[in-house]
Amino acid sequence: MRIGEGVEWAAHCLLLLDWMGEDRPVPTARLAAGFELPPPYLNKQLQALVKAGLVTSTAGARGGFRLARPLEKITMMDVVAAIEGPEEAFQCTEIRGRGVGADSPASALRRPCAVSTAMRKAELAWRRALAEQTLADISATVKRGVPEIEDNVRAWYARN
Amino acid sequence: MRIGEGVEWAAHCLLLLDWMGEDRPVPTARLAAGFELPPPYLNKQLQALVKAGLVTSTAGARGGFRLARPLEKITMMDVVAAIEGPEEAFQCTEIRGRGVGADSPASALRRPCAVSTAMRKAELAWRRALAEQTLADISATVKRGVPEIEDNVRAWYARN
Repeated sequence: MRIGEGVEWAAHCLLLLDWMGEDRPVPTARLAAGFELPPPYLNKQLQALVKAGLVTSTAGARGGFRLARPLEKITMMDVVAAIEGPEEAFQCTEIRGRGVGADSPASALRRPCAVSTAMRKAELAWRRALAEQTLADISATVKRGVPEIEDNVRAWYARN
Repeated sequence: MRIGEGVEWAAHCLLLLDWMGEDRPVPTARLAAGFELPPPYLNKQLQALVKAGLVTSTAGARGGFRLARPLEKITMMDVVAAIEGPEEAFQCTEIRGRGVGADSPASALRRPCAVSTAMRKAELAWRRALAEQTLADISATVKRGVPEIEDNVRAWYARN
């Protein structure tokens, strides 16, 4: 099981959009430069964030991305669902009903598969833990380590 | 994020090995027939279960697989780790230290990345929930729906 690097990229770009504090949309190239990421691949993740309603995009020469809502209202579950898709990681293919399972009564096969239920229970615990953590919480954690993070970010962008 | 169908196959085969109650090793072809699975692909999953110590294998014409320990001592975490590998799903690539992060003090970069910590926290909740559920629990759930499951399985194998 793997979570793509797009989740790391997206979470950091959302934090960056907040820390930059720009009043104009921020173009992909500028966000990509902030983490030395390849702009075309980053753009794909940013479009996924637009589709999920976490950022808004403006087209044109002065176009770019803006946070669609404050970090308090974006959870890590929102970010993961935007990038990885909302589907469950475990997909039951109902092999229990084949071969040896053909002798089971139909009523038994109407109950959910116990293996699938166990996997889903764990996945719900994962989703719940992601949903309990907002980007504002994460930003606050970063600022405890680097209180001047916003100044650093703005100074870096003024030079680059 | 996807969990391969190997987890579903492996969990069901481990349950099947218990329900069959055979005193001889069960060959791949026989397990595969039980769920109409392709034997070569199933064999790959069974080898992963051997490597993880959940089943033992015996070579030769009368060879096959046996549970290495009772279902009470096999958790869904054991099954997932055997099939999907023990690595964390989220791999932090430390993009925070690049570009804009180059201005952060070295002490800040020695603390774990807050995004990575949030992802890891959720993954631990997932792993904990998997570890809390044994195959014996799952077998008991199945038997509440189909109390005669073992008889059904043995009758099916006597006919096939």
